[in-house]
Amino acid sequence: MCVLFFRERASRSGEKTFVKMQEKHRPVGWGEFWMSDSKISFDEWDGLYADRIMQMRRSAVRDLFAAISRPDVIGLSGGMPDISSLPLDEVAECAKRCVTVEGLKALQYGSSDGRIECRRTVCKILAVQGIEAKPEDMILTSGSQQALDFLGRVFINAGDDIICEGPSYLGALQAFSAYQPRVHCIEMDEDGIRVDLLEQKLQELKSAGRRPKFIYVIPNFNNPSGITMSLERRHLLLELAHRWNIPVVEDDPYGLIRYEGQDLTRLKTLDDQVIYLGTTSKIFAPGLRLAWIVAPHHFLERINLSKQGADLCTSPFNMVLAEHYFNEVNWQAALEVSKTRYRERKNAMLAALEEFFPEDVSWTHPEGGLFLWVSFPPYFDTNQLLPAALEKGVAYVPGTNCYPDGRGTSSMRLCYSFETPEHIHEAISRLASCVQDRMALYRAFREAGALPETASTKHSYRQ
Amino acid sequence: MCVLFFRERASRSGEKTFVKMQEKHRPVGWGEFWMSDSKISFDEWDGLYADRIMQMRRSAVRDLFAAISRPDVIGLSGGMPDISSLPLDEVAECAKRCVTVEGLKALQYGSSDGRIECRRTVCKILAVQGIEAKPEDMILTSGSQQALDFLGRVFINAGDDIICEGPSYLGALQAFSAYQPRVHCIEMDEDGIRVDLLEQKLQELKSAGRRPKFIYVIPNFNNPSGITMSLERRHLLLELAHRWNIPVVEDDPYGLIRYEGQDLTRLKTLDDQVIYLGTTSKIFAPGLRLAWIVAPHHFLERINLSKQGADLCTSPFNMVLAEHYFNEVNWQAALEVSKTRYRERKNAMLAALEEFFPEDVSWTHPEGGLFLWVSFPPYFDTNQLLPAALEKGVAYVPGTNCYPDGRGTSSMRLCYSFETPEHIHEAISRLASCVQDRMALYRAFREAGALPETASTKHSYRQ
Repeated sequence: MCVLFFRERASRSGEKTFVKMQEKHRPVGWGEFWMSDSKISFDEWDGLYADRIMQMRRSAVRDLFAAISRPDVIGLSGGMPDISSLPLDEVAECAKRCVTVEGLKALQYGSSDGRIECRRTVCKILAVQGIEAKPEDMILTSGSQQALDFLGRVFINAGDDIICEGPSYLGALQAFSAYQPRVHCIEMDEDGIRVDLLEQKLQELKSAGRRPKFIYVIPNFNNPSGITMSLERRHLLLELAHRWNIPVVEDDPYGLIRYEGQDLTRLKTLDDQVIYLGTTSKIFAPGLRLAWIVAPHHFLERINLSKQGADLCTSPFNMVLAEHYFNEVNWQAALEVSKTRYRERKNAMLAALEEFFPEDVSWTHPEGGLFLWVSFPPYFDTNQLLPAALEKGVAYVPGTNCYPDGRGTSSMRLCYSFETPEHIHEAISRLASCVQDRMALYRAFREAGALPETASTKHSYRQ
Repeated sequence: MCVLFFRERASRSGEKTFVKMQEKHRPVGWGEFWMSDSKISFDEWDGLYADRIMQMRRSAVRDLFAAISRPDVIGLSGGMPDISSLPLDEVAECAKRCVTVEGLKALQYGSSDGRIECRRTVCKILAVQGIEAKPEDMILTSGSQQALDFLGRVFINAGDDIICEGPSYLGALQAFSAYQPRVHCIEMDEDGIRVDLLEQKLQELKSAGRRPKFIYVIPNFNNPSGITMSLERRHLLLELAHRWNIPVVEDDPYGLIRYEGQDLTRLKTLDDQVIYLGTTSKIFAPGLRLAWIVAPHHFLERINLSKQGADLCTSPFNMVLAEHYFNEVNWQAALEVSKTRYRERKNAMLAALEEFFPEDVSWTHPEGGLFLWVSFPPYFDTNQLLPAALEKGVAYVPGTNCYPDGRGTSSMRLCYSFETPEHIHEAISRLASCVQDRMALYRAFREAGALPETASTKHSYRQ
């Protein structure tokens, strides 16, 4: 079924052929999207690998990055920010100054918690978001992805329970999967994670003698759903977490990428016990791999230990570059340009969805961030749609990648940050034609009695 | 006993006081060197942390980096290369060109295996060392420390056996410790790891139904011992590993830092199944955090999966910078300057050791790299010496940090790469006076019958 996609990858990477993985090696819930770059080769170390590596999820986004590098594919799959609005001349001067001003520090090993000068700079970025923090309240990491890995490392024994939103960031699910947790994704409504369902889950786990290690949420413009947690829901979540004494992780890569509506107080501002993750990736450049964890000191000590073992330190060079950029360049002006573009692109996508998509499909209306979430009728399978979509030159993320348990089959994540409004219009038009073909097929099957009758009324993004 | 050191740290970091950790939270074998930055604060998450984090080793080197930032301390502890010979003007131009030439790629997300252009550049560096590799034979990592972490991630289930040299790189021991292995350190002689003892260990494990996951060695100028594995021993090791079908990991950060004797063929050149680790840290700049794993493809697939979960990708910016540096700057000339300095410094250290140290102390004579290893009589404890040494303004790494099991008490690692010959002479003189004080104390105790009689003949670096 995914032959086209594999063939494309195969021809580009020079691999001979696609090798179907044994069932036991497939990541749980990966369904038809799983693929392999394996050559046909005997792996004499097969019995030596750790259990965790057999259970780890592959990142659909990473694999799809490959797909969108084909010039004919319009990429609505990746999560790449548009960095073309960066003042490159100024950035180039910053890069040069990294060496001329303090090259011997920028090019040398650094401390595992990160340069104090850089942490001071991050304090200023946090202040813009209403978060008061001191340099000693944080550790710098090699991107937020590393922070997610450390969360798993510090908290999760194999078989431990953790709570995520449903849907959740696929990179987080992938990072956590290395530590073999049981992930419980709590469904969201338009105000964010359903705290009533969360409490129900906590009760259920308690009855079984279990206590989740943390609650992971993306309150602002959730990846993948685009949903923002309401202020009331934020208070309810913190109250619940406090009552149950469960750490709350606030992943906030998009907090400064709001282009509509009113900024909402961060969980971290409401409760200083929150573990807060921020990054330069969406406000400057993902290529720096520079992010921060702001958290209680006793937790940061554990993170520091993880950091020492994992990579000694984040690149001091990249820290110095960030210091120059955020202190010497008008970064907020550059960000405004990006945000204007994102708003235009989001509106282009919403208009195109309205124009081309069938009545019984719904989608979210984000006020910021890079993504929206499309919900199809329950019978519709977005994994099955993918080969046809790629053949038409459109890439997206099937919803199952955003759940750890096979949910999300009738939904997809669309990213509108990276393509022009014209390309987005064209991509949604192409995608709609694939959708309609497949829906017609479903209807024909249903009318022939080959499929059970399902509701055809407008669905919310909730599955 | 370590009060001075803790007080120093405390006063600099603004912490109130040193809190003695509970015994159960101490890393195994850490002895008196363990320290904490803890404030006196109740950690309400104490029951939530993963087992691994309670068992992880703290890096003495990282903690000592803090100590040597005091201006009065001469640092023989860290493993920092001397980067002052870098042509900074040219590096600054390279940094600028990263943005002007291909900023939109350098500043964006990249692929998890690393830029193809950078991997091509690494192929040229490998060729200088006699290793033939193609770009698809490697994955770039955020420093070799990350490669070590991935080794643990891919191979080690809790309780698995692995083989290291004795002594071994403390950062490797720390990285592996996150995965809770049983580490078997096989003693070395002047030709490297004792293959006879290794085979004995493998037999012993086999009798217990166990099979080690990998053999980790640093054949060139081993950190910490400075010993180079002879060519004959390399062949013997590979033959043994092949016969037992155990992967060999060749960590080679110092291979290009040979300033005496003849270059020896890499294990990777002798056997392409070897997992080879290389880095820019000692031949350009540790601040880039850029390294490579060259390995069989089936293994690289597992590393790629680890990489996706751990940090998505290594900084593309730093890869572009390395490409510019290694392709456009005469990096080998800069390296020659460093190597000349290292040789001078090593000779200064050897001369000072000869001049100041007592007869019954011995040390290695490295032909390259950054370290040498000092062996004291068995009764002598270098952990106990450390506070006095720091008080005199000299930092070193006590030998126990280079073993996972409490061995190494009567040895120390000295780094000669970072200080001037004059400073090294002064440091060894100060250290010798501490050593002599302590030896006089031991002698007095022994003469009073308070300590057992021990050999006072010249000891080899073997404990």
